[in-house]
This record gives sequence, C-alpha cells and structure tokens, in this order.
Amino acid sequence: MKNISNLIGRIHPLDAAAMRVARERQDVLTKPQGSLGRLEELSVKVAGITANPRPRFPRKAVIVLAADHGVAAAGVSAYPQAVTPQMVLNFLAGGAAINVLARRAGARIVVADLGVAADLPSHPNLISRKIGYGTRNMVEGPAMTAPEAQAAIAAGVEIVEAEIERGLDLVATGDMGIGNTTPSSAIVATITGRPVADVTGRGTGVDDAGWRRKVAAIERALEVNRPDPADPMDVLTKVGGFEIAGLVGDILAAAAHRRPVVIDGFISGAAALVASELCPVARSYVIAAHNSVEVGHRIMLERMELVPLLNLNLRLGEGTGAAMAMHLIDDAVAILDEMATFGEAGVSEKDPPASADVKARSGQ
Amino acid sequence: MKNISNLIGRIHPLDAAAMRVARERQDVLTKPQGSLGRLEELSVKVAGITANPRPRFPRKAVIVLAADHGVAAAGVSAYPQAVTPQMVLNFLAGGAAINVLARRAGARIVVADLGVAADLPSHPNLISRKIGYGTRNMVEGPAMTAPEAQAAIAAGVEIVEAEIERGLDLVATGDMGIGNTTPSSAIVATITGRPVADVTGRGTGVDDAGWRRKVAAIERALEVNRPDPADPMDVLTKVGGFEIAGLVGDILAAAAHRRPVVIDGFISGAAALVASELCPVARSYVIAAHNSVEVGHRIMLERMELVPLLNLNLRLGEGTGAAMAMHLIDDAVAILDEMATFGEAGVSEKDPPASADVKARSGQ
Repeated sequence: MKNISNLIGRIHPLDAAAMRVARERQDVLTKPQGSLGRLEELSVKVAGITANPRPRFPRKAVIVLAADHGVAAAGVSAYPQAVTPQMVLNFLAGGAAINVLARRAGARIVVADLGVAADLPSHPNLISRKIGYGTRNMVEGPAMTAPEAQAAIAAGVEIVEAEIERGLDLVATGDMGIGNTTPSSAIVATITGRPVADVTGRGTGVDDAGWRRKVAAIERALEVNRPDPADPMDVLTKVGGFEIAGLVGDILAAAAHRRPVVIDGFISGAAALVASELCPVARSYVIAAHNSVEVGHRIMLERMELVPLLNLNLRLGEGTGAAMAMHLIDDAVAILDEMATFGEAGVSEKDPPASADVKARSGQ
Repeated sequence: MKNISNLIGRIHPLDAAAMRVARERQDVLTKPQGSLGRLEELSVKVAGITANPRPRFPRKAVIVLAADHGVAAAGVSAYPQAVTPQMVLNFLAGGAAINVLARRAGARIVVADLGVAADLPSHPNLISRKIGYGTRNMVEGPAMTAPEAQAAIAAGVEIVEAEIERGLDLVATGDMGIGNTTPSSAIVATITGRPVADVTGRGTGVDDAGWRRKVAAIERALEVNRPDPADPMDVLTKVGGFEIAGLVGDILAAAAHRRPVVIDGFISGAAALVASELCPVARSYVIAAHNSVEVGHRIMLERMELVPLLNLNLRLGEGTGAAMAMHLIDDAVAILDEMATFGEAGVSEKDPPASADVKARSGQ
C-alpha cells in the first residue's frame, strides 16, 4: 500500500492555466463560441490534464488486461471460461475487435495476463504478470488476498509506466475475462449502496435464469464478504478481480503522469470507480468513452460525474469503445491546434451591426 | 421536375441479400452476437446501401454548399451576412473546422457557391453554381421561384455525380449560410405540422429577443406563403434556400448511385426531410451523424426514423458532425471486413456446457 499511497500523492489537480489558454483560443477560432459543444470542453480538459494548452496525442495505446474469475463457477456467464485464453490468443493474432479498432485509431495494443486460469504460451507481445489462475470464487470468500490485489495494482502501474517510458500520450483501458461483469456489478453495488439487481446486466448475454443466478451470486458474495463501502481497497480485494485491480493501477499511473486515460465500458468503469474512491482527483484524468448496455455503468459514471462521449449500445469490452472514442479526442485537439482564428482568417466576429445594417442583396 | 423524377426513379430499396450476408458474418465474428450494438447495425445498413456484403469507403468527400438567405434582413442571426463569403474563403484556405475534421477523416472537401450574396473570387477549388445573390426574404414572399429551386437541386445532383465520376464511396453533406437555420425551421414546421416555436432554436447564438424575431419571421413567412405540407417542392421553394435545395440534390444523387450519405445537422436534416418526402426510400441511404443542439433537429430525425450516431452538443454546421461520424462508419466496416471468425480464431462460441462443467481453476 505504501507504493500506491506514493503514486496517489503524485496525482495533482488539472492545470488551470493551460485550461484558460485553451479556452481563450477556442473562443477566437472561426466558429461561433461553443458551437463545437463537447469537443471544445474535451479539448480544454485534456489541456488541463497534460498542462499543455495545445496538446496532441500521436502515441496511443490500448492496455488490455486479461484474467479469470472464480465466480464463473457460479454459472454467471454465457461463455465458458476457456474463452479467456482463446481471446488472448486472438488479440495476439490480431483477429479481435480491439485489434481492428485500435489499428483504426492509430493505437498500439498492450496485452497482459494478470491471472488467466490457463497457462498461456509465451509470446513476444504478451506481458505475463499472472497473480494466480483466476481469482477465488467470491461467493465462498474473498476473491483475492490483500497482497494479491496490491500486486495486481502494481502490475497495472508498471505496465503503464513502461509504456510511458517507450512514449505514450494517450492511454485507453481494456479488459478480457469471462465473468468479469459480475465483480464489476459487486463493486458498484457496494460503493454506491444500490441494490444488486439495479446494477447487474446480462454481460455477454445470459438468459433470464442466468441473470437471476448472477444477481444471487453477487448478493451472496456481499453477505459472505461484507466489503466496507468506505474502504475501496477492501471492496476491490473481496469482490474485484485481477484485471480490475490492474486497471486501477493503469488509471492511477496515467493520472500521476498527466496522461489522459480513456476508459472503455463497465469493467474499466468499475476500476475507475475504485481509483476515484482512492483518489478523487484521479477522475479528472479520466475520459468516459461510451455508455455501455450494462445497467450499472450509468450509475458508476454518474457517481464519478463523467459523461460518456459515445452511446452505441456496446457491450463487448476489450477497450473497443475506448478505441473509438480516441477518434473524437484526436478531433478535439486537432480543432484546437489547427483551426484559424477570426483574425488570421479575416472573418467577422459576433456582435454584428443591428439587423438594419445587414446589406442583404436578396429580394432585389 | 422531369430530371428530378427520373433521378427518384433510380432510387431502389436496400439490397436485402447483401444485408443478410453481412448479418450472418457479424454473427460468426469473435465477439458475442450483437455486442458491438449500433456499429453492427450500421455495417449491415451500408452493406444494403452499396449492395456489397463487405463494403469499404476509402474515397470520401464532404460536400459543403454555401448560400445566403433574404430572411437574414429580418435580424434572425447573430452574425452579419458578410460572414458567408468570409467563411467560404476560410474553407478554401483550409482554416475552418470542417477543413480540420475532414482531413482527420480522410475526406476531401468540395465547396460550392449555390447563391452567396457576394461575388467570390474564382478559385480552383470553388465550384460556382450561383443561382442568385441570396434568396428573397421569405417573410415577404417565396424565397425562390420554382425554376430556381429546381436549378439548385440539379446543381447538387451534378456536383455529387461529378465527384462519383472522380471516385467517391462515402458522401457527407455540409452547409454554410448565415440565417440558414431559419428556413430549416420553416421546413420542419411545415412538413411536420409542429408549432414554429417548438422547432426553432438559437442558430449560431441569437439572444432571447433574436429568437423571438426569428420565430415571428418564420410564422409570418408561413402565413404569407402558405406552403403545402403535402408538396415538398412547394415547401422547399417557398421557405427553403439555395444550399438546402442543393443538399436535396446531393442526397437524392447519392441514393440513386447507392452511396451512403452522412447528413450533418439541422440544415442537412431539413434537406434530407425534403428528399425523404419526395422519395421515402431515399431515407434508407441516409446516416444521421449527430444530434444537433437545434431543437427542431430531433423532430425531423424522428420523422425520418433516423437515430444519430453522435450526441456532442454541436451546432456549427459545415459538415463538421458528418466528418466526425465518418470515423465510426469506417470502424463499422473495418470490423465487418477485418475481424476473425470463431472458426478462424479457434474461439469457443456461446451455448457453453452447463455451469457445472466449467473447469474453473480458481478457488483451489
């Protein structure tokens, strides 16, 4: 925990001076003030994050953390656990959705095994930081020990710091883990105090009976473990997962290094929720990519006061929504950096002459 | 009108066979079925538009049509009419928002003068199809004559057909014209029968008094001209504009040539509304880019049963939202074209063994 406390100590508020300069520039670009709406707000936010009034993000990465979940034994997913390692191999072979979307966004993919319940072959593009062969079944006791959760966070921090060392301007988070909407729902239920059924969705597509099993499993896990809502590390340890803990580390590391971190959907959102309970200012560094189909997602975003950029009914994970949102972030900073000002372009500003002075040549 | 009728006769329903093949492929790609939500639907739609089960859109253009409006004399805009030609010059110089966003989307920009109320210098990248020096003031009588409206539509058709001749896979519409939210509100009020105040917004940013002037001007224009809601050409002629008519031509031409047409915001939406009243099947070729701040925009999209891709509080026009939406369209077709199938990747499909068979190694 000392390392995590040190990291949190290095997370500072957004840079107000850079934000002011960015806002002032937006207001003299050749468009009505505010007419690019959330794109303008986004450009000002990332100016504050980077402490740079005209930031650009040429070097991007989607950090995809994979792990398994003991609670899968409770029949909470529509897919067998074998899909987790199969999909990791698919990421490495380039055939998954995140491969396609990251290529399109100009982002590299960093795949790490935080705790897949199978031995994966060694591969030059796979980072192995396995904490265990899946978490324990949280229905029966804590998913992780405190040292395991801390080690998973540390792995996430180290993965992002190594990428920053290589050169990284914009971080996106992704996940792979059969059953991982279940711990995510458990986290949001605990931290917000909402009933489990209100924050539990169908994951990759369980049927009605599967959904009832999932809700019952989470309710039982909360009874058995009694995670303390005021202690985010306790919540993460007891009802979280290795990849979720790793994503907490990713988000805190990005914030400490003043890199914007685009969170994907429900799993990344659960990690961001833990990170922002550990360090409220960290949420300023987070950009919410999209509004997931998972019902609990909206609730966690509201608690973090984050408004997602996209609303496309996604429920895939892997970082897919985050990769798509990168286009809009690049659009936002390109506008701030590349547009002409009213002065440069010789375009009249608002506050025109009264309407009688407008020399309309129409109706002649 | 004969040419327009001929064009409409060449607009056919989407290709059901291509859509079925695209849907079947989406369902065997390595992701839970439907988990990419609207991206999957979009890929199937553009397969139907292009009659190609795996379409790609390497060649893109944003068609920006500029014109002025006699109704600007009624004090309906926050900006002087001189801004229209100034912004056209800014487009040609590359300094406007649409230049930045089209570059980012890999789209070329085609700028055409359909009726700016000023003489523009000749420029190799400016298409001059000036119908007049702005429309007449619709508060006093019809904005256009019927031949003018038809000529403006024909200009839009010819501009898009010339670009298709050069090579064009994906069309986006944009507009520039001080005062052009006013005719757009008049069109949507007439066609939907909604009260003017319900479909009139603040354009580029008029104050309360300006908004009241704008509503009064539109109400007066509807009284004076009595456009026939059942006759979209009558509506367009009496309370439309040169660039709006040109955009009607753009949309019909794109549909006739089986090119998807991404409409930007309120002005493009008014044109799409006229096009879809002239030819209901044309709306199948339209992709709504974003949900504008203009209150009437949602109402026109609902009438066309179009759901916008983005919701970023934009109110700029020029095609800016359409350019941003192109990223998502490219993402959608890249997913369809590039992802591995379950068979190719060796990933297990849904319909797994019962939960008891899942060999979870956790909790050992």
